[in-house]
Amino acid sequence: MDKSCINVGILGWGTVGTGVSKILVNQNALISKNSSVQLSLKKVVKRTLPASRDGIELPSDCLTSDPYDVVDNPEIDIVVELIGGVSEAHSLIKRAILNGKHIVTANKALLAEHGSELFQLAQQHRVSLNFEASTAGGIPIIKPLQESFTANQIQSIYGIVNGTCNYMLTEMNERGVDFADVLKVAQDKGYAEADPTLDVEGIDAAQKLTLLIALAYGVNISVDQFHVEGITDISQQEIQYARELGYVIKLLAIAKLTDDNSVEARVHPTLLPARSLLANVGGAYNAVCVIGSAVGPTLFFGQGAGEMPTASAVVADIIDAAKSIQRGVSSPISHGWFTGSKSEISISPIDDIETRYYLRFVVLDRPGVLASIGSILGRHNISISSVIQKEPHCTETVSLMMVTHQAREKDMQAALAEIYKLDVVKGDAKLIRIEDEVDF
Amino acid sequence: MDKSCINVGILGWGTVGTGVSKILVNQNALISKNSSVQLSLKKVVKRTLPASRDGIELPSDCLTSDPYDVVDNPEIDIVVELIGGVSEAHSLIKRAILNGKHIVTANKALLAEHGSELFQLAQQHRVSLNFEASTAGGIPIIKPLQESFTANQIQSIYGIVNGTCNYMLTEMNERGVDFADVLKVAQDKGYAEADPTLDVEGIDAAQKLTLLIALAYGVNISVDQFHVEGITDISQQEIQYARELGYVIKLLAIAKLTDDNSVEARVHPTLLPARSLLANVGGAYNAVCVIGSAVGPTLFFGQGAGEMPTASAVVADIIDAAKSIQRGVSSPISHGWFTGSKSEISISPIDDIETRYYLRFVVLDRPGVLASIGSILGRHNISISSVIQKEPHCTETVSLMMVTHQAREKDMQAALAEIYKLDVVKGDAKLIRIEDEVDF
Repeated sequence: MDKSCINVGILGWGTVGTGVSKILVNQNALISKNSSVQLSLKKVVKRTLPASRDGIELPSDCLTSDPYDVVDNPEIDIVVELIGGVSEAHSLIKRAILNGKHIVTANKALLAEHGSELFQLAQQHRVSLNFEASTAGGIPIIKPLQESFTANQIQSIYGIVNGTCNYMLTEMNERGVDFADVLKVAQDKGYAEADPTLDVEGIDAAQKLTLLIALAYGVNISVDQFHVEGITDISQQEIQYARELGYVIKLLAIAKLTDDNSVEARVHPTLLPARSLLANVGGAYNAVCVIGSAVGPTLFFGQGAGEMPTASAVVADIIDAAKSIQRGVSSPISHGWFTGSKSEISISPIDDIETRYYLRFVVLDRPGVLASIGSILGRHNISISSVIQKEPHCTETVSLMMVTHQAREKDMQAALAEIYKLDVVKGDAKLIRIEDEVDF
Repeated sequence: MDKSCINVGILGWGTVGTGVSKILVNQNALISKNSSVQLSLKKVVKRTLPASRDGIELPSDCLTSDPYDVVDNPEIDIVVELIGGVSEAHSLIKRAILNGKHIVTANKALLAEHGSELFQLAQQHRVSLNFEASTAGGIPIIKPLQESFTANQIQSIYGIVNGTCNYMLTEMNERGVDFADVLKVAQDKGYAEADPTLDVEGIDAAQKLTLLIALAYGVNISVDQFHVEGITDISQQEIQYARELGYVIKLLAIAKLTDDNSVEARVHPTLLPARSLLANVGGAYNAVCVIGSAVGPTLFFGQGAGEMPTASAVVADIIDAAKSIQRGVSSPISHGWFTGSKSEISISPIDDIETRYYLRFVVLDRPGVLASIGSILGRHNISISSVIQKEPHCTETVSLMMVTHQAREKDMQAALAEIYKLDVVKGDAKLIRIEDEVDF
């Protein structure tokens, strides 16, 4: 097929959909100059009409409330799914694929749940399914993993992939404010939803991690198969103690290939060396560090959300699909990752990870407390690297901070269970894992 | 054409060639798992034989001293040019293209000089010419510019693209050593050549900038068409004064789209805000910051040189070419950038740039010196933002540092010419341009 103009239909005219329509309509000449493809925006679906958006005048007859005006439209070559949610997006994309449309989506929740099925279907019907905007917004990270690092075994991935959490942790670090206060500011500024659960509990980051793992290791996992821990438990005290120890706290999505050929997957607050690049990614920015067997450490940084950054990635995907159509590619890139060809790799349980730990115990200010805790840790093969105990203020309890050497999570949890039985220890410890490898 | 196995020939078995052969031979299974292509290394050309390399056993009959065993070999599909230099590489690549071979090269000097001709020839003969490794080694930057940012007008590029200079400046900054000493260390460690001119004079960075500009703006320029200034004039004093002012000195390759649709191109030492990510790129690492109209600020970081990082990018290019062959793509990606389709953009002269400046004058310790200099600057529309004058030590001269507000280069040079006529000013000022935009 050699078409001079490729027709595009967009499902959903929210924030990202508006950005995409702005680029396709207002920047059409730029696109053909940059890519030699001619794109035409034929249909935009919005549930409730009439509707208008500042900064964009859609072509006449473009706006419709019926998604089947796009997915069943014989004129349309590329369907861009930006309605979000899982169920309706899933059935519309399936139908579009069956109709021979190429698909572009930014829907990480959908791919985390139905990616494998949709990629197989796309492959059968020889259409592309592009999803650069699903992870880390405008940052090119899907394409590097799929195309630039093919000579590498990916050794590890460390991602700041949730802008809301990074904004909140940055504010807590730079302004000394507490979690509850910064959440309110983030909500007022539109960085956090009224119900912030998906962001602050780490679920959004975990969904993105499943995509990165699928690409890097060919394993399909769901978010309930690995350890996911948000930032709700991070207090100003932890931020400050971390700084004293030379660290910064970031919410990281982590994947690591282990020696026994399984993959660690986890999302949790992490202590990073304060001078490292990743620790210095501030505000609502995202960054993904990929360490490959040949290339070594790499880092990709940019805006992980927002109208125009996300639209930038969506339109790049549209242009890629259009090039495939125009150049008459007989089969799209095979997504071996999503179709089980690399499935010999398994996910290792959190119990098996080995890392260094930051611990803060609240203990009674009595003689022998440090010795009691230290001896329990020692019996579980956990060795202490440094200790800070602060002078007590007006209470009878004190904070006792420890940083351990490399230890196994299983041993750590067993030791903590024992430590919690000590009368002198009040409540659960604050535990934050440390990643020293990201030291560049 | 649907071939089950794609044959590769390498011209040059130096550092990068060895890395590429290691991946193609030792990691063959990984490549086919990651990319679904079967690659076979057929020939490696090395001028003087016999030869062997640690960590790689080439297939029998693979090694040859005759480059025509590769470029004229009907069995070979992809020719990988890694001999470096311009003249021979140029004629061998031309011959290979005429023979219908796809080309992969890491040769920035060649492309800076003959890129336009070679891309046109490749397009005529419907073969690809991939060159990811030519700029910033293992970091994917060519592909993002060509494919991921096609929805953007590129507003500016700031690149740390010479690892030698970045290593030297980092050492000067962190260890307080002087230029001559760190150059010696860099030479001993193999980071700098015996003749370091190409690196320390900024020429290598300038060659890479011509490629980035060609990709981003479609303008073909040579390194003698823009301002190129190396790091040989950076002393420990500048490093320390910069730090006092909250800046770090980096050698940057800079491209900026101006309001009148021309492009600024320049390579020079630059003061960057000390907290910015780019200022924190240390050691021999490279990083390229790209600011796009839609995506906003992005940054790509990694190793810009070395056997395996560079081989990672070369092999990714080989795999891309192999995929094109296997998928029967009828025409490769058109390099509109190199063939003049966007040539309405011109390069603006250094005189026209507007930036902030760091200046250090060595002046006699007399009353009225600051006033004299300040009034000359003022008459040339240059306004001073801050001044530091240090107590004199044992000499009768003192250092007078100034940071200016935004000023035109032309005005600055005219002002300096006048200032140099003052009796109280000893020698030329140290002038370092400041980039505040890179503040993330």
